[in-house]
Amino acid sequence: MHAVAVRRKGSSPEVVEKPRPEPGPQEALIRTLRVGIDGTDHEVIEGSHGGSPAGEDHLVLGHEAVGVVEDPNGTGFEAGDVVVPTVRRTPASGTNEYFERGQPDMAPDGEYVERGIVGAHGFMSEYFTSPADCLVPVPRELADLGFLAEPISISEKAFEHAFASRSAFDWEPDSALVLGNGSLGLLTLAMLVGSEQFDRCYCLGRRDRPDPTIDIIEQLGATYVDSRETAVAEFPSVHEPVDFVYEATGYAKHAFDTIDALAPNGVGALLGVPTDWEFEVDGGRLHREFVLHNKALVGCVNSNTGHFGAAVDRLDALPDAFLDDLVTGVYGLDELDAAFATDDSTIKTAVEFDAI
Amino acid sequence: MHAVAVRRKGSSPEVVEKPRPEPGPQEALIRTLRVGIDGTDHEVIEGSHGGSPAGEDHLVLGHEAVGVVEDPNGTGFEAGDVVVPTVRRTPASGTNEYFERGQPDMAPDGEYVERGIVGAHGFMSEYFTSPADCLVPVPRELADLGFLAEPISISEKAFEHAFASRSAFDWEPDSALVLGNGSLGLLTLAMLVGSEQFDRCYCLGRRDRPDPTIDIIEQLGATYVDSRETAVAEFPSVHEPVDFVYEATGYAKHAFDTIDALAPNGVGALLGVPTDWEFEVDGGRLHREFVLHNKALVGCVNSNTGHFGAAVDRLDALPDAFLDDLVTGVYGLDELDAAFATDDSTIKTAVEFDAI
Repeated sequence: MHAVAVRRKGSSPEVVEKPRPEPGPQEALIRTLRVGIDGTDHEVIEGSHGGSPAGEDHLVLGHEAVGVVEDPNGTGFEAGDVVVPTVRRTPASGTNEYFERGQPDMAPDGEYVERGIVGAHGFMSEYFTSPADCLVPVPRELADLGFLAEPISISEKAFEHAFASRSAFDWEPDSALVLGNGSLGLLTLAMLVGSEQFDRCYCLGRRDRPDPTIDIIEQLGATYVDSRETAVAEFPSVHEPVDFVYEATGYAKHAFDTIDALAPNGVGALLGVPTDWEFEVDGGRLHREFVLHNKALVGCVNSNTGHFGAAVDRLDALPDAFLDDLVTGVYGLDELDAAFATDDSTIKTAVEFDAI
Repeated sequence: MHAVAVRRKGSSPEVVEKPRPEPGPQEALIRTLRVGIDGTDHEVIEGSHGGSPAGEDHLVLGHEAVGVVEDPNGTGFEAGDVVVPTVRRTPASGTNEYFERGQPDMAPDGEYVERGIVGAHGFMSEYFTSPADCLVPVPRELADLGFLAEPISISEKAFEHAFASRSAFDWEPDSALVLGNGSLGLLTLAMLVGSEQFDRCYCLGRRDRPDPTIDIIEQLGATYVDSRETAVAEFPSVHEPVDFVYEATGYAKHAFDTIDALAPNGVGALLGVPTDWEFEVDGGRLHREFVLHNKALVGCVNSNTGHFGAAVDRLDALPDAFLDDLVTGVYGLDELDAAFATDDSTIKTAVEFDAI
């Protein structure tokens, strides 16, 4: 079968031939429909994050998949069920407490592999197998966009953790700022707008008009903030102190400036994965501000089946017009250059293997 | 009546004469027993934090009080009840949502005054008045040490917020590190040890042996960590990554180093109030570490009546031997120099106004 893999750091994704996998006990065989591409894929391709399975010279990409159960293999699924796979799997050392309690997203380094990212081949192939308990059912009518369940699940987790951090008091947030107008930032912005929990939502980017991401932001009813004009730390003086900040840029100064952007009692969820970068901060002021205004920061990575379940419901509720604008292209295996493009007209793309 | 006040930035506390206050509606008159002294008092005396009531040239000190109801004045209390007052009161502008929901500890700047700290006279006087709903009952046998309820309440809040931030998953912490061996740090260490939630507790200071705080740490069964030998960021390599860090130093680099000291999924509660201080951090690495290991930081200030109620129960449970060692002196008004001393043999002191 065909698969899309990277062979070494910095090389372009290429189509490779692999044997069709055989499902093991408790595993189902899935026929792949579509696999989304995100910033993590580009980090894996560049070699700044992730890595191939032990002893292998390539990594099959893809961690945002949707497919159809081809062979249930005795699991509770039926042939034809549409499913989305979660990403983390048990490491070579076997299962551990995090997997046993259904929270592999909280496992530390070495206690997991991530399909398509680190230590395990991904889903960007005609077929893949998965333990049944790592497959989340998706309504048939969402099959085309099911590859968005994974990125949405990331923000479901971030929202859950951020709100939990504010659950010791009556928190009444009404403003939210998303840092980053990539596909995850825009999806998260749409989630925040759609939740009706926030009266005012903002999204930060560094693009000139006309720009399709700015159009999406404004069509959602949110406010575009150009980081070249308004630094994150200056956000409160230009707009307002915000109750919730969601960071999806991987730009480390934003993580620290988030403390200044937050309103009293606010929380910032950090999701970016930057490389090392030394810079100066007014640590005394930031520390004081953090304490005297009861602020919080939570780091978040990955997501579990509960978050995927919530994500499927959320996907169903997002406006069709937004989703149409977000997904700028779905490409076949003969169009990988377009699928992996990073120009300003590309927002969210997917590789298509088959139709339902 | 006698009171202890500061007249201007940097001047020493002095005994002043004030009229005995008259309780207003819903207020009781309290005869003061003892008032504890902590780092915040010293910041107020130095002028780095807090300030006098509007239009006044002095501030009566004291925010850690215990007293006896002298005149219930129609409130639900009875004469002779032992009580501890909370610290935050409504500002001149009147009440607001934070006070109305019983969470004045979450009120932002301008929405509160703090008795003995900023904008309102404290409790360090022979009598004080307080709204009945800002008084927490204390068992008579705890009257001598009731002034410890306020600092304990600060950590009750910090624990509540820190644990809330970890409530979205099954958190099973078993190690804790207290940064700071001042009276708040030691009280918090004793709370952590006594909670039996943590198998291993550590407390960081910068003192040479022999030292009474090191003795207390070790008598509690905790491990003393000398910050001159083991920097906070190096703590995991020397000891172990810790699940919970409680920062009570006001040393801003510790706030950032806490991210390194934490184990995956750990949380740091920040309570110190530093002045401005610019320094360099590897912000990229800290940001990445925060995200990839699901870490959290929560800033905490002040406490509400719920935390005071928990603090009274906690005080009752702390070992007598620990409390005896912690309180190094209780002084009359003629011994203010000793009461406000900051030498290494002084841990926790109180000013005594009257006996029960």
